[in-house]
Amino acid sequence: MDDTDRSDGLEHLYSETVRETMDGSVYGAWRSIRDADAVPLSFGFPYPDSFPNGELLSAAESLFEAEGDCALQYGGGEHADALSTVIVDRARDRGIDCTTAEIHVTNGATNAIDTVCQTFLDPGDTVFVEAPTFMGALRLFRNYDVDIEGFDVDGDGLDVDAVADALAERDAAGEPLPTLLYTIPNFHNPTGVTLSAERRERLLELAETYDFVILEDDPYGQLRYDGAEPPPIKALDGSGRAVRVNTFSKTIAPGIRTGWIVAEESTIEQFDRVNAGGEPSFTRGLITSYAADGRLERAVDKLCVGYEERRDRMLESLETRMPPGTTWSEPDGGFFVWVEFPEGIDAEELLPDAIDAGVTYLPGSFFYADDRGTRRARISFSHVSPPEIDEGIEALASAVRAATPTVEADD
Amino acid sequence: MDDTDRSDGLEHLYSETVRETMDGSVYGAWRSIRDADAVPLSFGFPYPDSFPNGELLSAAESLFEAEGDCALQYGGGEHADALSTVIVDRARDRGIDCTTAEIHVTNGATNAIDTVCQTFLDPGDTVFVEAPTFMGALRLFRNYDVDIEGFDVDGDGLDVDAVADALAERDAAGEPLPTLLYTIPNFHNPTGVTLSAERRERLLELAETYDFVILEDDPYGQLRYDGAEPPPIKALDGSGRAVRVNTFSKTIAPGIRTGWIVAEESTIEQFDRVNAGGEPSFTRGLITSYAADGRLERAVDKLCVGYEERRDRMLESLETRMPPGTTWSEPDGGFFVWVEFPEGIDAEELLPDAIDAGVTYLPGSFFYADDRGTRRARISFSHVSPPEIDEGIEALASAVRAATPTVEADD
Repeated sequence: MDDTDRSDGLEHLYSETVRETMDGSVYGAWRSIRDADAVPLSFGFPYPDSFPNGELLSAAESLFEAEGDCALQYGGGEHADALSTVIVDRARDRGIDCTTAEIHVTNGATNAIDTVCQTFLDPGDTVFVEAPTFMGALRLFRNYDVDIEGFDVDGDGLDVDAVADALAERDAAGEPLPTLLYTIPNFHNPTGVTLSAERRERLLELAETYDFVILEDDPYGQLRYDGAEPPPIKALDGSGRAVRVNTFSKTIAPGIRTGWIVAEESTIEQFDRVNAGGEPSFTRGLITSYAADGRLERAVDKLCVGYEERRDRMLESLETRMPPGTTWSEPDGGFFVWVEFPEGIDAEELLPDAIDAGVTYLPGSFFYADDRGTRRARISFSHVSPPEIDEGIEALASAVRAATPTVEADD
Repeated sequence: MDDTDRSDGLEHLYSETVRETMDGSVYGAWRSIRDADAVPLSFGFPYPDSFPNGELLSAAESLFEAEGDCALQYGGGEHADALSTVIVDRARDRGIDCTTAEIHVTNGATNAIDTVCQTFLDPGDTVFVEAPTFMGALRLFRNYDVDIEGFDVDGDGLDVDAVADALAERDAAGEPLPTLLYTIPNFHNPTGVTLSAERRERLLELAETYDFVILEDDPYGQLRYDGAEPPPIKALDGSGRAVRVNTFSKTIAPGIRTGWIVAEESTIEQFDRVNAGGEPSFTRGLITSYAADGRLERAVDKLCVGYEERRDRMLESLETRMPPGTTWSEPDGGFFVWVEFPEGIDAEELLPDAIDAGVTYLPGSFFYADDRGTRRARISFSHVSPPEIDEGIEALASAVRAATPTVEADD
């Protein structure tokens, strides 16, 4: 018998990585934000009447009719198989020339990112991220007990020059180079900015020079309301350095939670092995059935109309209502506006007052691996109606006004 | 710039565990079995007309009607939330007293087992398994670069005395004790046997004495056609040593791929953290909607009728048709019969002839971590119709007859 202290239940039996990371803090104030009785500008959710309930129901009907006993079987029938083709065809539309052998279907984008982590990351590895970045991805990286270094984001996205400098310095000093660089190139979460085409090219050169993988996460790319799309990083990738993650959560619905990865065939084989089980055949078949006859494209067009209206309303409302000293990003697509409050305001401290005033947001600090972002907040125009956007921004403005140390009467 | 050899694509960037395990062989002859034009006694699949297409469609209709805009949103609505209660209620029916905080819902049983692996296993750890055992679980364990030790199975299931001896020996010799012991206590895959109640109790004592976790995988427990059910290991577990995995794949349909884990709340918290993303809200709501008004219980009763008929037919057919020298298990439930061919017959070598004769099966060697099981085969009565069972067993008998070294004319 061993003499391990067992007063911790099963904890002493957990894997080393789980024990190292189990106390990591997760979303401090999340519960109070979620449950608040206030306009939820915190939620990066699609707006409620965007969901295709009726269309999915009829897609299910068509699926059962076409597939009979195959629709719910292991592996599914032809529709389930054809999902990879649905994905490949749409990837080609965006300039990514790939085959179904270069696609791995996952249980949503989070599971896709996790599969990439599981395949590439050892404890102690280094991961480069945008600072700020998607808090869900930070949470995943933390689970792997890696060192996370964040790089600033400006109006053209990730500051690739700063990345290049850090790589050169690490290389010269014999310090660890990153295994992965994680980026959300289009309508970045939380800032809303888009990485310029030049920087995408440069990032691929750096990946090749310093031998790392670019994890391109593009959930919002198709939700563009202004301007032309720069090519996806994967479309520019001549050397197989880019691993691209995407999802139907934003173009169909989060409730079906189906994502995918585009990568070299040999890497996809490892994803298939590591990510056990795979996406349910019913869901795969259902999405294929739903996507038929251009329905997915029409849905995306319609979503863009709904989101553009909300984006415009939020920018107008900020312009009209916010007190001086507050600034914000002006995204061409996606879900998010990134706000900077006047000096002296801490977004986490302001939150209870903002909730009292009638609005929720996510404090900027949620999106950093370190203690930056205290004056920042992410507000989403995706989830609420245009009148609610006005109401939420009005509440935010009043909370900011009340908290601003020196209020000048004239602006 | 580093001087790593990069001729392997991204392989040199994979995690150590992935690099250690990436060449593991997977199901040698699987493709030829899957694609064979023969009666598929190889497939552990439900029979085709068991699938509740119409009921799931009307469950989807009810879900959309009841939930409106919530059904496809992140998190889902009340139905998605209530799935844990559906699971708890049915666990209680089987003697497992748990709360929703002790449930983690997964993307099928394979994903559940993988989540347990990710939480508990370090490379080099030891895992005890039944020999033979479910090949899908073996595949998962191999991904974690652990040492696998298999223990014989007899008519009462896993030979727990042999496990006790091995534990005492390892302990005395200062050798590593297992982190996990994986067992399928009811209608074991591939043998069809059930672990006796006494052995379940004894296993829990051993887990407590030697400080390991029992991973109880019970996909078939509700599909019992004879006799009374021994209590689940988790129902006997006073010390939180058992982690129980289950799935709706066999009681609703594989295509919805939804499973769950029952464990102590502190361990569930780690599963929630490690298993990123979680099960889609639409599927969770759909299952809750489907399970209402006793529909799930009625479906299971009906499945048992269909499977019992097939089980009976297979045992009769084996009795009538197989040449002497072949033996088989007689399961009280589940999907599988475990066959031992006459001495001199290698099941992998026999397979091409069996396929020519018109039947497929899974060679016993697929179910061992070592080179045992060469005379064995798993045949499933779950998937094909009773007449096809006769046809398949007739084909198997003729292949065995043709391959038996010394055929006696009289029996």
